[in-house]
Order: sequence, then structure tokens, then C-alpha cells
Amino acid sequence: MEKKATKIVDLLVEDVRFPTSLELDGSDASHPDPDYSAVYVTLVTDSEDFKGYGITFTLGRGNEIVLHCVDSLRFLVMNKDIKEIQANMGSWVRSLAHESQLRWIGPEKGPLHLAVAGIVNSFWDLWGKMESKPVWKLLVDMSPEQLVSLVDFRYMEDCITKDEAIEMLQKEVPMKSKREVHIRMSGFPAYTTQVGWLGYSDEKIRTLSKMFLDRGFTAFKMKVGSDLEDDKRRLSILRECIGWDHLVMVDANQKWSVPEAIEWMKELAQFKLHWIEEPTSPDDILGHLEISKALKEHGIGVATGEVCQNRVMFKQFLASGGMQFCQIDAGRMAGVNEVIGVYLMAKKLNVPVCPHAGGVGLCEMVQHLQMFDYVALSGTTENRMIEYVDHLHEHFKSPPKMGPSKYYPPTDPGYSTEMFSESVDKFSYPNGEIWKDLFSSGKYRDPSRIHKRLV
Amino acid sequence: MEKKATKIVDLLVEDVRFPTSLELDGSDASHPDPDYSAVYVTLVTDSEDFKGYGITFTLGRGNEIVLHCVDSLRFLVMNKDIKEIQANMGSWVRSLAHESQLRWIGPEKGPLHLAVAGIVNSFWDLWGKMESKPVWKLLVDMSPEQLVSLVDFRYMEDCITKDEAIEMLQKEVPMKSKREVHIRMSGFPAYTTQVGWLGYSDEKIRTLSKMFLDRGFTAFKMKVGSDLEDDKRRLSILRECIGWDHLVMVDANQKWSVPEAIEWMKELAQFKLHWIEEPTSPDDILGHLEISKALKEHGIGVATGEVCQNRVMFKQFLASGGMQFCQIDAGRMAGVNEVIGVYLMAKKLNVPVCPHAGGVGLCEMVQHLQMFDYVALSGTTENRMIEYVDHLHEHFKSPPKMGPSKYYPPTDPGYSTEMFSESVDKFSYPNGEIWKDLFSSGKYRDPSRIHKRLV
Repeated sequence: MEKKATKIVDLLVEDVRFPTSLELDGSDASHPDPDYSAVYVTLVTDSEDFKGYGITFTLGRGNEIVLHCVDSLRFLVMNKDIKEIQANMGSWVRSLAHESQLRWIGPEKGPLHLAVAGIVNSFWDLWGKMESKPVWKLLVDMSPEQLVSLVDFRYMEDCITKDEAIEMLQKEVPMKSKREVHIRMSGFPAYTTQVGWLGYSDEKIRTLSKMFLDRGFTAFKMKVGSDLEDDKRRLSILRECIGWDHLVMVDANQKWSVPEAIEWMKELAQFKLHWIEEPTSPDDILGHLEISKALKEHGIGVATGEVCQNRVMFKQFLASGGMQFCQIDAGRMAGVNEVIGVYLMAKKLNVPVCPHAGGVGLCEMVQHLQMFDYVALSGTTENRMIEYVDHLHEHFKSPPKMGPSKYYPPTDPGYSTEMFSESVDKFSYPNGEIWKDLFSSGKYRDPSRIHKRLV
Repeated sequence: MEKKATKIVDLLVEDVRFPTSLELDGSDASHPDPDYSAVYVTLVTDSEDFKGYGITFTLGRGNEIVLHCVDSLRFLVMNKDIKEIQANMGSWVRSLAHESQLRWIGPEKGPLHLAVAGIVNSFWDLWGKMESKPVWKLLVDMSPEQLVSLVDFRYMEDCITKDEAIEMLQKEVPMKSKREVHIRMSGFPAYTTQVGWLGYSDEKIRTLSKMFLDRGFTAFKMKVGSDLEDDKRRLSILRECIGWDHLVMVDANQKWSVPEAIEWMKELAQFKLHWIEEPTSPDDILGHLEISKALKEHGIGVATGEVCQNRVMFKQFLASGGMQFCQIDAGRMAGVNEVIGVYLMAKKLNVPVCPHAGGVGLCEMVQHLQMFDYVALSGTTENRMIEYVDHLHEHFKSPPKMGPSKYYPPTDPGYSTEMFSESVDKFSYPNGEIWKDLFSSGKYRDPSRIHKRLV
């Protein structure tokens, strides 16, 4: 029989990096050479049978900084009683996000907040495993009061209060079991981003477009923003391959100023675009609002959120009308808890959530969040899709279960974030087998390494 | 004769912390126990006669994270040609703030951006020393075109373009020499924050208020936000000591929600308050706007900026009307360069800049920026003041020159950021003499230390 876990006795953290820059996978207008990476956080308990595994995603360099942030937060995690955290998780998350001295280097933003995400996500994986439930189902089975206790409502109250949130959740309770049956049968719509990374050749775009069309995808995203004529040619190829009945979204990854975004997108409107993602600085709420207004007549919505730092920024994007598609990221804010806060505001303000995924472990995590939202909150898949990229799932014990253009609800207990220990070892940076080989063969050079002094 | 410096040959970084929490100096509603700290960055050149010293301020824990960020940026600094940086400093700053992989853990926010500030500030100290000028004078003597080349205008163009900025600066050129003479004679208005840290007793408030009044101060800031009745009592004491002719500002350090801020401040309006600083989340532009509107009839302005992450956030605060006093911080954004971008927008949008200071080295730095603004840009001291706290200046080689409620322009070459090496050694964390004594005597306990594993 399994031994019960009652407290956290250790917190481990690993720097795991995949050399995706070698193939230009994931390349975009602001990130020409990403190495998809994970800060991999393990919560060790007093039971050998239960551990939690959490992930924060980065693009390679910088992963080491998030590791140090996790280390600096360790004292707020060690020896904590698991039941006490569960009873009032919102306040534990606040203790991590607002430590009296550490908060100055944020607050609630940057690598420290990514580290909080890693720790909090790890706790959810643990919680799911302890209850033998996938996290989405764990959330779905909670009462409205319990759900609300997960969220730190500070700074959200002018948008939504705890009482309003409880009332909103309460209304959906009668429909939950029917929706759960439905989503297990039908799955949740997905779209692919894999047809048009900026570093890909025209030929590769053509091959991939056809391949994903054949696999049943009906929505496709392409990177834009480096060269207008290139963008037109690439979008022509995509439309040629998939026709005009399917959805096409574009993503500029923060490349433009506000006026530039508007001009550029007017030029691309001819390709019948569903949304423009990250047209300008991710911090520019009022800029996004202006772009939204200008592109409305062209039928193009504005999508953003993958680097949006916290619920306060989302509150403003949602309430102002600067965001028509809300792209939460599971590794960016303070984990599951803060993301639920954003889902609550999005529901109230009637903005569809289409989570950011891809990367390392992001597809694994956001599927849980979106299933929860469907069953317990929004009750619809209309205008909603989950991003899908089929990289790197082979390193995870419970990869997403995909059908044609669909995610099916995870069934394994936990948050789907546990990796094979062989993968963690092999891709551990800089001393895992893969990296040692890449460095010694001269196939990979990390310019930052030669000048580093701190470990 | 001095040897010319032509390139950067090393970048050193030190963790310097002062145990200010022992006396509750600097305590406020969100930071009950700050240890004023500095990430101290030294740029070493190929000349023994020239080094640059730069500072980023933190509250203690977290300083180690900024150190690691400096280390991760080292490869973008080593072996750089000084003249090349000077010729196009805006693009060098962008290379630090937008490194293709590192930017994911920001972008342009959090400890990585603080680290950029430390490096960039260090370069300005070096540049000033090489030209034998204090930094404010170095800036004042630059042409409008040169000044504009310092700034990364990306994401600012919808507020101000390079051409507009040049034109604006050009208009002020004829008045510069007269203003320079004037500011050297008359100094720049200062206010004190030292009368009302939240941890101080009523008696201490009384003593300090009288002391600073005697020293000639005419503007006083008090911390509020933990308990309404306490705030009323403390403000009564302050008004009793200084009378009703002097300015009183209050600072809530992000404590409230938007509706709470409005209610609380209506209760305090009876004390004739000049501004409320950081009433709510520093990220809540639209929330600050709402608070500004509600408090207008009470004659209270909203001030914020000390943790405002970058020029994009300032752009929105300034343009929306959410900020009546713009409190730039010299160690928060990407150093001198990004701060100049904010001064340009503030001038265009007619919002007075009242820099955040105190901490470690902040008074030393912001005086340069404000003198520059007066001489070359705004041309007025109306509605403008520099915060002053007289802690920790004894560790600096060129402390501010103060007169009664005034800062006088620095005369030593550089950015006033060089510390005595004895101070750096003594307060080095955790192995400096002071810290070793505090730990071994049991007078100080850092709960985060016992659980840390990475160095």
C-alpha cells in the first residue's frame, strides 16, 4: 500500500535544455535561435510514493537564472505541511510571490515569478497524484468556494470579487457532469503552429502545411514580422496548400511599434486572418487597444498573453478591450492558481481563452486548464482552441492524447509534467550527455558560457 | 599622465548589503524589513586610470539573483570597444535588454533588467570620468542628436518620435548655459522621506519631523496603508510638528486594491496631501487612472514609478493621465539611457518628474538626471522635487551636496556611484566583516540561507 505524503521534505531543481536552435524550430521575429528549455522542479515528500514535478519554460539562456530564483524561494517551501497548503493555497502562493525582500526585484514578474510557477505547478502535480486524479478533474471536482480559495484576489477586486466568482462558478455546477462526458468523447479543438516558423524554407512550409492538413488540422498559425514581402509569399503558400475555409492566425512576437503593426497588418488582411498575436510590446495595453480598434473592420482580432506577467496586466487587457483572444501561459504566471484568476476574469468579461502552448511541457499543462474551464466555467469551445506543437512530448510520461485537430482530456493522475529521468539526465545543461557531445564536437557554441564566473 | 581607456576588459560584480532591517529604516506597508542593498558593478578597462562603478538597488534577498543576471550578460560586455559603444549607445543597450534567448525571462523587466541598469550605469560613470565631467554635465553638453542616439525608441514612437525629440531638445539649447549657472547657484528642491517609516514610533516621528524642519525641509513624506487609524494619528503628529504650510505626501507602497485606495485616501484628505504614492499594484495603469480621477477633487495627485519596469509602462501611465508625478528610478530601468526616454515623454506630455531616491546610491544617481532635465529639457523646478534620505552616503566617494532642502549639482567626474572599497568589503554579503559578526552573534538571521544549495 502507498504511504501517505504529509509534508514537503525537499525541493530539487534541474536545468534541462533541448538544442532546438540547431533546426530553427521555434524561430520567430524576436527569437531567431531558441533552445526550448525547462526549469524542472521536483517536490519531494515524506512518502517515497509521491513526488510532484513542475515546469517553467524558457528559451535556453536565462534558465540558469530561474534556477537560482527557485533556490532563493526554497526556504518558503521546505518542511511545509501539505494539508495546510491545500486548505488555503492562495495565501501560500502569495507568500511566494510577495516575500518581503524578494518582491522588490519583481514584483510578480520576471524570472522570480517564473520560479513561483515552477514550484506551484509541481505542487499541483503532487496533489493530483495524491488524489489519483488528473489536475483538470481535481479542479472540476472542487466546490466553487474551494476554487476561489486558490486565487489571490488582491488587485483583482475592481474587476471581480470573491463573491461574484463563487456565484459565477455556482451557476455552472449543474452542467458539469454532462460537459465532462462530452469533452471526454469529443475532445477540445487544437491548432498547429508548426507550419511556419520564421527560419523554415518555403519548401518546408509547403510540406508541413500539407502534412498537418492531412492530419486533420483546421487552424494554422504562421510567424510574421521580419519582412513584409516574405510574409506575403509565405502566407500565399500556406493559403495555396490549405485553401480558404480553414483558419489562419499570424504571430509577430512583439516586433512592431503600434503604428507599424496597424500598417503591416492592413497589408496582410487579404489573407483572411483570424488573429494577430503579439503585434507590439507585451506590456503595451493601450497600444493593443489601439491596434484592436484599427483592425476590427478587417475582421482581425488581437491575441496576446504568452509573456504577460500577471493577473493585473491581464485584468487591464481584458477590461479595456485590448485583447480579443486571451493566451494564458501555464509556466509564466504564479502557476495554476493565478491562471485560474485570469480564467475567472475572462469569463466575466466574455473574452475567449486560447492558451499558449508548444515549448517544453506547455501542451501538457494547458490542456488541463482548458478542460477545467470548459467543464466548470465557460461551458463552450466556441472561438476557443489550444495551441499544439508536436515537439518534445517523447520526454514526458503522459504526453497529450491527440485526435484529428483535437486534445482529449488527460487520464493519468497529476499535471502531465513528469519527465523520464533519462531525458532529464541526457539533456541536463551543460553536463548532460547530449550537451557534452554538442560542445566537444563543436556543433554548438554558447557564447555566454566562456565569460561566466558564478556557478 | 593618464592612460586612455579604449576597451572593456573585465566586469566585476559584488553583493553589498546593509542591515537596515535591524532599525526598521525603510520599512513600509509591503516591505516590513528591508536590508538596503546594492548590486555593485565594476567595468574594468585597459587603462588602470579608468574604471566605471554602477549600482542597482534591492531590498536584500534577491540581490544574489541580480548578480547572476549580470553574470549571464557578461558575454555582451566583455572586450567591447568603448568608442563604439559611445557612438551608438542605444543599440548596445538594446543588445543587453533583448538578447535573443534571455529576453524570454523578461522582456525588459525583473532582475535581468535591473542587471542591465547596473551595467549601463557603470558605463556612464566610466564615461564621465574619461571626460572629467559629472554625468549631468556630460549629458547637458551633448547635442540633441547625440542625446537621442542614447535612447531605444522602439515602442515609444506612438508617443514621441526621434525627430520630435530632437526638435524639443533643440528649442531648449539657447537657455542651457543660463540655466546651468542658475542651478549651480540655487540647487534643486528636495524632500525628505525620513520622518515616517512605518516601523517608527510616534516619538521618533516627532523628533525626526522637528529635526528635518530645523534643517530647512519644506516637504515631507510619510508611509501609510497598514492601519487607517494609525495613519491618521501619525499624520496628525506630523502636521502638528511642521504646521500646514509645508507639503505632505503619503506612500502606500502598493498595499491597496483600487476601490480601497480611493476610500482610504478620502479619509486622509483632511491632512492636505500633495500626492499618494503607489496606491495599488504598480502594474495597474488603468487602476491608477481611476484613482487619479477620484482624488482630483481632493487636490491629491497620484505618484508612481519606483518599480515601474520600463518605458512602455511609463508611456501608458503618462499618456493616460494615470500619473500626476512621474517617479523614475535610476536603478530600475535600463539605466541612464531608458530613463532619458521617459524624461522625453514626460516633457512632451507635461508631467513633472520627481525621482525616487533613498536606498543605496539612488540619491547619488538621480540628482544627475534631474539636473540634466532642468538644464536641457524641462527648464523648470515647478512641481518638481528629488527625494532625499540621508542614509548610507558615508560609503560613497562623492555623496550629494545638500543645502537646506536642496540638492546642489555634483562636481566630481562620473555618476557619483563609486563606493569606498573598505565599505564594499565590510558589507559584502555574506562574508564581509559586518555580516560575519551579525551571524555569529545571532543578531541577524537570514531564513533563506540555510536552505540554499546553489552558490
